[in-house]
Amino acid sequence: MESIKIGILGMGNIGTGLYKILQINDEKIKNYANKKIEVKKVLVKNFEKQRDVDIPKELLTLDVDEIIYDPEIKIIVELIGGINPAYDYLKRSIESGKHVVTANKAVIATFGKELDDLAVKHGVQIKFEGSVGGGIPIINTLTESLSANEIEEIVGIINGTTNYILTQMSEFGMDFETALKEAQIKGFAEADPTSDLEGEDAVFKLAILSAVAFNKRVYPDEISREGIKKISQKDIKYASELGYKIKLLATAKKYGNNLELNVHPALIPNKHPLASVNNEFNALFIRGNAVGEVMLYGKGAGSMPTGSAVLGDVLSIIKAIETDGIKNSNNNITSKLVVNNIGQSKYYVRLEVVDEPGVLGKIAINFGKYGVSLESVVQRARGEKTVPLVFITHETDREKLDKALEEISSFSVVDKIASILKVEE
Amino acid sequence: MESIKIGILGMGNIGTGLYKILQINDEKIKNYANKKIEVKKVLVKNFEKQRDVDIPKELLTLDVDEIIYDPEIKIIVELIGGINPAYDYLKRSIESGKHVVTANKAVIATFGKELDDLAVKHGVQIKFEGSVGGGIPIINTLTESLSANEIEEIVGIINGTTNYILTQMSEFGMDFETALKEAQIKGFAEADPTSDLEGEDAVFKLAILSAVAFNKRVYPDEISREGIKKISQKDIKYASELGYKIKLLATAKKYGNNLELNVHPALIPNKHPLASVNNEFNALFIRGNAVGEVMLYGKGAGSMPTGSAVLGDVLSIIKAIETDGIKNSNNNITSKLVVNNIGQSKYYVRLEVVDEPGVLGKIAINFGKYGVSLESVVQRARGEKTVPLVFITHETDREKLDKALEEISSFSVVDKIASILKVEE
Repeated sequence: MESIKIGILGMGNIGTGLYKILQINDEKIKNYANKKIEVKKVLVKNFEKQRDVDIPKELLTLDVDEIIYDPEIKIIVELIGGINPAYDYLKRSIESGKHVVTANKAVIATFGKELDDLAVKHGVQIKFEGSVGGGIPIINTLTESLSANEIEEIVGIINGTTNYILTQMSEFGMDFETALKEAQIKGFAEADPTSDLEGEDAVFKLAILSAVAFNKRVYPDEISREGIKKISQKDIKYASELGYKIKLLATAKKYGNNLELNVHPALIPNKHPLASVNNEFNALFIRGNAVGEVMLYGKGAGSMPTGSAVLGDVLSIIKAIETDGIKNSNNNITSKLVVNNIGQSKYYVRLEVVDEPGVLGKIAINFGKYGVSLESVVQRARGEKTVPLVFITHETDREKLDKALEEISSFSVVDKIASILKVEE
Repeated sequence: MESIKIGILGMGNIGTGLYKILQINDEKIKNYANKKIEVKKVLVKNFEKQRDVDIPKELLTLDVDEIIYDPEIKIIVELIGGINPAYDYLKRSIESGKHVVTANKAVIATFGKELDDLAVKHGVQIKFEGSVGGGIPIINTLTESLSANEIEEIVGIINGTTNYILTQMSEFGMDFETALKEAQIKGFAEADPTSDLEGEDAVFKLAILSAVAFNKRVYPDEISREGIKKISQKDIKYASELGYKIKLLATAKKYGNNLELNVHPALIPNKHPLASVNNEFNALFIRGNAVGEVMLYGKGAGSMPTGSAVLGDVLSIIKAIETDGIKNSNNNITSKLVVNNIGQSKYYVRLEVVDEPGVLGKIAINFGKYGVSLESVVQRARGEKTVPLVFITHETDREKLDKALEEISSFSVVDKIASILKVEE
């Protein structure tokens, strides 16, 4: 059986998963691809590092050029992560005529268009299923299966770390710090969890989804984001009383020619399929104008699931090479969409107020004054100096809400505006 | 812009959806395919029939040969349904060099291999995403995204009619007949619902999944099936008390070289993602040896969702034609799998017994005698002549269970064995 040679850049978590899958599913892969996949070279930083897989020493190299300029290697898999030097390696790989597969969300979110154009120019493919949602086939679904649809909306839980933390807080009443420590012990949060907690990781993925689903390229910086650090046990409890879960959501919604993109913690009704996506699992809820609602669910990270996505891309390229069917993306159509947060939303607002008669009425009147109508109110705790007063509004502009809250915050009975969260329906 | 001509066989429910999507998403489709899709001919049975879409009269024909032998038509979409004459039309279309797309589960389940071989021989593609799960991208996910995986298990809710009925019975306490009428009124059940209720529809789909996921061709007749007619309000109530929902499941499980295929109503724990798949929605839960658990969820039927899947297939073929990359399936590898129901399972057993002391003990001892151990027992109703006695067993062979129940059914205090259902975990 003929073999096809690949090079792998980076042998960390995902690289190890990929290498393992190549070993355990050797027969399946040969049957599928009609070829044997041979790993010819692996770029590492350190020859001596102990790894979970047994890679022959002679495959390892410290010199990326040995891979990029090896004429026998047809496909290069980049699994280093981060922008530098991964972006440079990917560019040079494409320029040297290699097909490339990557799971690098930072590079694809930031330089996806440049790499795409370069790949078209050099007649090679670039694929990146593993960059969003780990093993969940979201990129393939959007670009292939749902190609007949105008995508209207994507709502996703696409960060496993924050979802694990919020699940622990919700199910076991843990506070944020304890849940974070738990996540770190279980390997669901990194030693420095900033990128996950502050929504940066989710923003990278949402930028990729925006390009793929809406043909609208958006730099990560342009996407508004809010992390989960401010979510308190109180908010989780009140949301639960009102029939909601709090999740870190990445949302993309089209209103006419406007595309609203957000990464934010939000309330989602218990009966919504995303509400029961717990712990390290990810899920993406998609609404297309033909297919209606579709949801994809699975492990959004991890060595084997992401390795599965990466190898799926490699196999797809091998099949295309075999049939001479290298498809070049030709998304040169300029999207008319303007990124704009104009959509209305319901909001959850928690105030801390002095516990005395008439406070609720005074605040409710003020919401009304600015055209914000209320769907529900919860006022439970009593007898403390300040007590939480929780509102869920009907659909409203954020601007109106902010004006109403500005005036409300000046009331002497209002201690503070403790949280404002969107409510997704 | 260049156009590609297609022919459509059948303008019923799905055909109408396809035609509508071609109209409303015209721009998206042109951008995606770099070509205009032109419907050149539509085979109908009746020129005068009132349709939901406005099709120019001159496109309609009563003569299939006008489509099959039109040299300008590159792709033929078969949406007639049923084996005859659809199978004949598909064969002749392929023989005349046309790529074909179909949503016909009966034909693909029964003659998928023959059509596949014929397509390879004639250098054309055959695609059938719409045949399972409506708009849910299950075929594409199994054949492309998860290609690096050995699939170990598929558990699916793939029949919307029965899921709608069971949901109504479970949520509103309806009896089977009332729920069926409700489903018929809402358009989720046909006038003759036999094929859905008795599991035949799900068996077709499971046969297709078996071929696609396990490379194992199984005739629909070879798959054991049980419909939902025997499910009573009592079973739903007891299952609920024990923390389960009853769903009609299609299951495919690999144990070594054995493949167990079943369509049957079964209990599934409330916390399982499939338990909250309600009404007309479908979902497929897949376990791959690399990706772990993945679930796909969406509308499993209907004009627009299925039209979306069909058009996705058409677009994929157009892209392949454009790049000369017609991929021919070459699944000539003989699967080693043997279809065999050898797996163990937990079982739910409802007996109707005389309400007197000692009955439970006597029956429990008898289960033990045959090596069937019990996980839980519910004995609620009192004071009637016979009362239900409900058991959930631990994992056991069906053979042992049947032997135990044979002896139990001979006890004078046992009126009847009212239900035996599998429990999926």
